[in-house]
Amino acid sequence: MRLMHEAGFSVMRVTEPAWLRWELEDGQFTLDWLQPVLDAALAQGMGTVLSLPTPEPPPWLARKHPEIAARRQHGESWGRVSQPVTDVTNQGFRFHAERMIRQVVGRYRDHRGVIGFQVDNLSGAEIFRSPGIFEAFVESLRQTYTDVDSINKEWGLVSWGRPLSTWNDLWAPDTNTVPQYDMAWKRFQSGVISDFVSWQSKIIRETARPDQFITTCVQYADAAGDDPGVARQVDITSGTVMFDIRDGLFFPESGTPRSEGVHAGPWGMTLAADRAYSSRQEPFLLTQTASPTADPIMNAPCFDGQWRQLAWAMISRGARMVEFRNWHALTWDPESYWTSVLPHDKLPGRVFEQLSVVGEELRSLGSAVSGLIPDAQIGLLWSNPSSWALDFQSGPRRTGEESLSREGVYDQIVGSFYRGAFEMGVSVRILHDRQICEGGADLVAPTETVKTLPVLVVAGLYVADDHLIDWLRRYVEAGGHLVVGPRSAVTDPQVRVRSKAKPAGLTDLLCASYQEMASLEAPVTVESCAPGFPVLPGAQGTVWLEGLYAEPEAQVLATYIHPHFGRYATVVTHRVGHGRATVIGTVPDPNLARALVQWLVPPTDPWRSLVSGPVTITSATLGDGRKLRVVYNWSWIPVVIQLPQPARDVTLPDSLLPSGYEVALNPWDVRAFVQ
Amino acid sequence: MRLMHEAGFSVMRVTEPAWLRWELEDGQFTLDWLQPVLDAALAQGMGTVLSLPTPEPPPWLARKHPEIAARRQHGESWGRVSQPVTDVTNQGFRFHAERMIRQVVGRYRDHRGVIGFQVDNLSGAEIFRSPGIFEAFVESLRQTYTDVDSINKEWGLVSWGRPLSTWNDLWAPDTNTVPQYDMAWKRFQSGVISDFVSWQSKIIRETARPDQFITTCVQYADAAGDDPGVARQVDITSGTVMFDIRDGLFFPESGTPRSEGVHAGPWGMTLAADRAYSSRQEPFLLTQTASPTADPIMNAPCFDGQWRQLAWAMISRGARMVEFRNWHALTWDPESYWTSVLPHDKLPGRVFEQLSVVGEELRSLGSAVSGLIPDAQIGLLWSNPSSWALDFQSGPRRTGEESLSREGVYDQIVGSFYRGAFEMGVSVRILHDRQICEGGADLVAPTETVKTLPVLVVAGLYVADDHLIDWLRRYVEAGGHLVVGPRSAVTDPQVRVRSKAKPAGLTDLLCASYQEMASLEAPVTVESCAPGFPVLPGAQGTVWLEGLYAEPEAQVLATYIHPHFGRYATVVTHRVGHGRATVIGTVPDPNLARALVQWLVPPTDPWRSLVSGPVTITSATLGDGRKLRVVYNWSWIPVVIQLPQPARDVTLPDSLLPSGYEVALNPWDVRAFVQ
Amino acid sequence: MRLMHEAGFSVMRVTEPAWLRWELEDGQFTLDWLQPVLDAALAQGMGTVLSLPTPEPPPWLARKHPEIAARRQHGESWGRVSQPVTDVTNQGFRFHAERMIRQVVGRYRDHRGVIGFQVDNLSGAEIFRSPGIFEAFVESLRQTYTDVDSINKEWGLVSWGRPLSTWNDLWAPDTNTVPQYDMAWKRFQSGVISDFVSWQSKIIRETARPDQFITTCVQYADAAGDDPGVARQVDITSGTVMFDIRDGLFFPESGTPRSEGVHAGPWGMTLAADRAYSSRQEPFLLTQTASPTADPIMNAPCFDGQWRQLAWAMISRGARMVEFRNWHALTWDPESYWTSVLPHDKLPGRVFEQLSVVGEELRSLGSAVSGLIPDAQIGLLWSNPSSWALDFQSGPRRTGEESLSREGVYDQIVGSFYRGAFEMGVSVRILHDRQICEGGADLVAPTETVKTLPVLVVAGLYVADDHLIDWLRRYVEAGGHLVVGPRSAVTDPQVRVRSKAKPAGLTDLLCASYQEMASLEAPVTVESCAPGFPVLPGAQGTVWLEGLYAEPEAQVLATYIHPHFGRYATVVTHRVGHGRATVIGTVPDPNLARALVQWLVPPTDPWRSLVSGPVTITSATLGDGRKLRVVYNWSWIPVVIQLPQPARDVTLPDSLLPSGYEVALNPWDVRAFVQ
Repeated sequence: MRLMHEAGFSVMRVTEPAWLRWELEDGQFTLDWLQPVLDAALAQGMGTVLSLPTPEPPPWLARKHPEIAARRQHGESWGRVSQPVTDVTNQGFRFHAERMIRQVVGRYRDHRGVIGFQVDNLSGAEIFRSPGIFEAFVESLRQTYTDVDSINKEWGLVSWGRPLSTWNDLWAPDTNTVPQYDMAWKRFQSGVISDFVSWQSKIIRETARPDQFITTCVQYADAAGDDPGVARQVDITSGTVMFDIRDGLFFPESGTPRSEGVHAGPWGMTLAADRAYSSRQEPFLLTQTASPTADPIMNAPCFDGQWRQLAWAMISRGARMVEFRNWHALTWDPESYWTSVLPHDKLPGRVFEQLSVVGEELRSLGSAVSGLIPDAQIGLLWSNPSSWALDFQSGPRRTGEESLSREGVYDQIVGSFYRGAFEMGVSVRILHDRQICEGGADLVAPTETVKTLPVLVVAGLYVADDHLIDWLRRYVEAGGHLVVGPRSAVTDPQVRVRSKAKPAGLTDLLCASYQEMASLEAPVTVESCAPGFPVLPGAQGTVWLEGLYAEPEAQVLATYIHPHFGRYATVVTHRVGHGRATVIGTVPDPNLARALVQWLVPPTDPWRSLVSGPVTITSATLGDGRKLRVVYNWSWIPVVIQLPQPARDVTLPDSLLPSGYEVALNPWDVRAFVQ
Repeated sequence: MRLMHEAGFSVMRVTEPAWLRWELEDGQFTLDWLQPVLDAALAQGMGTVLSLPTPEPPPWLARKHPEIAARRQHGESWGRVSQPVTDVTNQGFRFHAERMIRQVVGRYRDHRGVIGFQVDNLSGAEIFRSPGIFEAFVESLRQTYTDVDSINKEWGLVSWGRPLSTWNDLWAPDTNTVPQYDMAWKRFQSGVISDFVSWQSKIIRETARPDQFITTCVQYADAAGDDPGVARQVDITSGTVMFDIRDGLFFPESGTPRSEGVHAGPWGMTLAADRAYSSRQEPFLLTQTASPTADPIMNAPCFDGQWRQLAWAMISRGARMVEFRNWHALTWDPESYWTSVLPHDKLPGRVFEQLSVVGEELRSLGSAVSGLIPDAQIGLLWSNPSSWALDFQSGPRRTGEESLSREGVYDQIVGSFYRGAFEMGVSVRILHDRQICEGGADLVAPTETVKTLPVLVVAGLYVADDHLIDWLRRYVEAGGHLVVGPRSAVTDPQVRVRSKAKPAGLTDLLCASYQEMASLEAPVTVESCAPGFPVLPGAQGTVWLEGLYAEPEAQVLATYIHPHFGRYATVVTHRVGHGRATVIGTVPDPNLARALVQWLVPPTDPWRSLVSGPVTITSATLGDGRKLRVVYNWSWIPVVIQLPQPARDVTLPDSLLPSGYEVALNPWDVRAFVQ
Repeated sequence: MRLMHEAGFSVMRVTEPAWLRWELEDGQFTLDWLQPVLDAALAQGMGTVLSLPTPEPPPWLARKHPEIAARRQHGESWGRVSQPVTDVTNQGFRFHAERMIRQVVGRYRDHRGVIGFQVDNLSGAEIFRSPGIFEAFVESLRQTYTDVDSINKEWGLVSWGRPLSTWNDLWAPDTNTVPQYDMAWKRFQSGVISDFVSWQSKIIRETARPDQFITTCVQYADAAGDDPGVARQVDITSGTVMFDIRDGLFFPESGTPRSEGVHAGPWGMTLAADRAYSSRQEPFLLTQTASPTADPIMNAPCFDGQWRQLAWAMISRGARMVEFRNWHALTWDPESYWTSVLPHDKLPGRVFEQLSVVGEELRSLGSAVSGLIPDAQIGLLWSNPSSWALDFQSGPRRTGEESLSREGVYDQIVGSFYRGAFEMGVSVRILHDRQICEGGADLVAPTETVKTLPVLVVAGLYVADDHLIDWLRRYVEAGGHLVVGPRSAVTDPQVRVRSKAKPAGLTDLLCASYQEMASLEAPVTVESCAPGFPVLPGAQGTVWLEGLYAEPEAQVLATYIHPHFGRYATVVTHRVGHGRATVIGTVPDPNLARALVQWLVPPTDPWRSLVSGPVTITSATLGDGRKLRVVYNWSWIPVVIQLPQPARDVTLPDSLLPSGYEVALNPWDVRAFVQ
């Protein structure tokens, strides 16, 4: 505890897998053992987040109640160690979970050190299967559609000769190939998760102190079902995000946008943070990060400086807390090689030293961090249902290896725009479709959104209801600049392809539309055809191409160089009153994405001039109204920057550095300034 | 309907997945709904092929009779949407299928628009498994072998210590590793398919008008069991063939011979047509094509011109009808991105326009198309049993992922010779082993075959009975030129490797034989050692090498350049009376295959001189005795050809173009001439 | 038989899969049929090894006693042909096996030709699963740990919230992710195999003649559980080893250290022999080799000369017998393309001729071969438990595809050092951890080991008990040079990472230690920092890097050139009395490994000067005290060597060749000399 305090830690998180330690035998609780741990932490000024261990039910529960088991896939049993899956809809499970929660929260609610509770863990990382869950799914369909004729019509089951005669005819999700079914199944699954988190939150809220928060940990890289839906059930979002570190943080990076389950490059790091912020449009807690993997043969501690970079990137993009896991490396365990603060010999070493510096630097920011709001020049619409639908298209649907994984084609589309913004020093605010409007009603007026986000990028919005499309139209009418990327406005919420010209419902605003689309085996070169649209040589459309034709009123900004695709426009823009609507018919490579962002957001902010070579920036507005400017060097080569405006180094708050002041950035260095 | 007519369509194919629309509840038939559709088609002069929806049984049948289900693999259930598999041997299923067929055919037999019926779909694309089918298989073995001792001897089961004591000892096919067992299993499966198609045909024949044809759709790229066996049961073959289009049609192509399930390059396109022709040695119907995949993220409409090329290639190689599927893109469906005539918005676009031109051009040929016979300079023997046996050798036999897929080593061997012919402008007639002789009796006399096909290539004929080998000997004696490729004449029909020197039974004719064979990790360079054998530098043997030694009487045409393999001959030829026997001990690369074809068929046909760069040709004899010559440009570069003989452009039948007349071929252009 | 004799064969091995031929029906034995075969062999002077066919139980046994079946994986049935898996712990199976063994051995024990018996085959190549085996495993745990509390503590089950309340809570091995569980499971499995081999040996020993040996065939490339444990149960080891032949034997080779299940390059060949020798630290029999695969489409007979190279390599590294399998290629069979002495036509060909030369050459060595001991300049410690633990870390633990395969990270680590020695002409003796000490007691005194092996390399010794570490310390104290490679001395026998600085228990001897480790995505360049340590440019550390810090008393021999890893030492050495302790913190590439070996064993042996280009050497001491020197040319290029010392060519024993005598080595040639 003393060492934790020394290293600057102010919070610890405990008891995630401790159900059996609380309840060794059915109904026999042992609760006092944690008291001395909490006391010791408090004595060092540290608070504690108490995790409720519902994701790790005790073996006796599995043995006594096998009906509680859910399954990852066909034929799998419950008896595995690493995070077994529970049917969280099972009332028997809920009885035991509630009893345990009430015992633990009741015992420790009055401890001064307990600042909050975590419910569940990695919610929605997996799809649940079990007879009980399938029956609940069918039941939910019955309530929605009343009779099978309705579902036959809505899902178009007639076209493959498989309409239902009775509810019993519904096939299992494992082998489903019908998009409409899949959407219903994913919506049901995300509902199950939200309901379970909500149910736990209510139980705790009845017992906990009003000043104690409730959170749940979302694994963004993996799945998370519907993160804004889950996050609504708690007081604050927690997120776990993984990065490719060490050489993976080089910038400008070359590799693929993302590797599976791991965000690559500095832009992947800030995207992860921006997604966590977006779940509640609020600051969030970060529960674990920077350890790319628990694989014992893929051990990779950061280079010196990278932990500082990570911490500053997260803080400036909205993290209220940055946790590291574990305190010390475990000696027995499948995850014994997880890079921890202390190594196996428990003697402070390089990791401890590096994190101590982070702790000290963060303290220098003081309480101004509390009200921090990360900057944003453009909005980016995120749609979990679109992600499900696009990934279902590309997924291995025949093998039953269904998952909610987001690391698919949706991420590729949306990520291409995000990356372009990051590489131009432009900050992005992610908005969820269901935060804009829901059930046919606005949750925020487009006239309000235009004020803070004058540019809104909508890419991969495959699934959209009429109201959302109308909201986007009103955003343009309110003076916003709407940028429509590929695969947008294609289907209705039932994933039925709309019969209208595409992007459906927006073609009149865009003065452009397409009938044909083509997947690209090789990228197609793009060239500018408007002086103001600064496409660099070598810019390309990738993956997918929509055959855009522009109407005469519209302006074509870029076209393809190709004997067949050359007939189509790449980027078309059209002024609509005070607003503007722009469409891009392909997944832009970084060159094309940067050109688009440069054109969308002219560089009026002088700090953007720092973005060059390995240097990038993030920024935020502090609680006291000051501006936080963070500058990074993602390389081994020392660089020198000149401050574009007067600012104070956060670690030397007394001296105002003048504009033009030269600041040296060491390898993998990060410097934070306030204005 | 009006648009269809406008685009030149003369036939539509309907109701493939409509069982439930015919019979919503068990025994309650609703049959009238199709009448107005057929009437409207007829009003536009279009006929209709009525598909009997046996491949898509209604859900209530699955629910009431689970014993009807077959399985693709262990543990799979019937409850999937996309083409469930039925145990077509099940008598309960046949009862329901027969009742439905009689109702539908009876209702519409008298409709003037109904020109024919399709039974089953993609017959033999899959291996059926179910307890009932396995028991039927064992029963068929009992009838063939009487007692287990016979099967132990015939299958050589003693060598692995696994002889049967009772029929109950027979293991399931899923984990079988015995080639003899696998051959019996594949033969049984193809028999099941033929029997099912035959059974349906008889029922329809009892009811249908004499002028209505019966067909069934064979998926050549996938499997199809034994296509000549299935095709015997119907009046005309229908085929579904897939190509790699767009850039995949470039010629000269570079890539691999074929990608999985999809034929690559123009030669793969005509090979598919020639295979369909071969099933009955008659013209065929083409049910769907040019859409390489139903994968919604692999959408690929043709470049301008490619649909015309496809249609002309198919017609000139024997297609009586070229269908496109679907009429309009479906809005809900796993296959909603299948490239259709109309896009999702149902407005005629580029695909419609392109196909309209095709329709108009084809009409210009008139009725002469009816008696069209595609040209052939050489014969190529095809052996489905050899394909099964070679693919079983290379397949993942341990995992139960058995399939009848042909896209394996057999296709690679046979395809290498076909491609060589195509690239030299030489037409190929595919003959099936079972069309030559069967059950120890000739079906065609070798003296007859020699007259039309003076050269016969036999490659990959791994499985051959004594009579077939004798037939090949008599073909040489009759003056034919027999070309024996690698892996031929190796085993008897029980897939037992023959103990004689190889190619077994042909070594005396060839005056060459081999004892050793070697798989090749890297290709081996080949050089000519005879002035008349025009091997280009860089020619190579690939994949497999048989260590041929030639006897002094034979002439060695080519050898390997390699420190070890250099001792062996590559190509050996030997004159036998008026005939000739030639052997090639490796899978030729395109350079070697072209040299072989050039030597086999000297270019007496002046039209072969057009084959150069991206230009290739196909040809046929029309019903009125005239010659059809089709010339293609498989590239973006316009080319000009000179007619080698006087001919008429089919779209300008009135003017005879002189020899030497220059014809410009645009990118992806095709021109058809008659002589 | 005559041909066998002609080719120089002196032993044949029969009846491996013949149980059913012995016992066609339950209890009805037919034993006489083998007599004429044995007689005929004896008449040609050939002895016979009789294999007891326990690995291939007859189908009637499977049918009558399904409880005897073991399973390879979930859901698999017993009914497959290729080597079904038996639950060898099942008492019913043992009853039948014992009855058959007693009948067969009793019938033929008195035949003069029978020189020995083989029990089991490829022991331990697979993990057995079945309810019975799992229960036996749980029972063995109960005996070891008495109560679940002990196992919870020992295995650290509390850390993932999965401690056991009762023995019934133990999960199945298929989905296990706990290293402690896996080690217990692998130890149990290897115990099952040893026990089964021991049980068979005892039965045979009761009946067989005293001069008949008992052996069992170990598949080193695959798994083999615990080969020294199994080999203890028999009189002599038999091994089956697979190589990548043909181009795969080029030297200097470039490719990866090893491909799956197949040893690559000449060093892989001698490593396989040295492993077989190590099982009993005695000469061994080689049952099959040089056929890289049974795959019918991967047929690859050796180039001329390679069989001779293989035979001499094996003999000079301790093989008492080199067998080839099969005598003739089988005509029906999944393995009908296994390269055999005679091809399918049974006429002697190239393979026969090549092997005949081998037989003649070996005869020239005479009886001196009997007492042959392969040379060894350095020892290499082998640890099967470490191999299990490291491979479990990297394995696909989530899918249940568990295997005992050794072709993983352990082989990569240990192989890198072995290869370095081979490439410097230095011979290696492999010692097993359990041959050094066991159960806390020395099996050999370190003072003895130092005398024959003054250098001992310990790499990948991940699992080590305190006594073994103490033994290593005493080896240094006794004057030995201990070389500690990466991933050594990390865990205790329960695979719990030790809490001490690493390499645990050796840091004081080494005067070096590390806290951090890192997997390497790309190799890191290494440079020498000591004049006597001859690192060539381009030397690299690969795969894994331990962050070594040296104390001032130690000497750093090499360091990394890298902005981050440059702070660490690569190789550190420290004199300890008369001994020396050296540590290397990475998996060396060949350049680094060669430098290390050059430094460890200075080239006092003049024959090492021959190792250059494609030439390598092996050597041994013959039974009569003379030295056997074998020189190889692993290429197509003829080379000339000069004898470094006077020696006699084994095929011309009468003339002593002088030092400097020029010997021409043809392509793929091998020459053997005695001194």
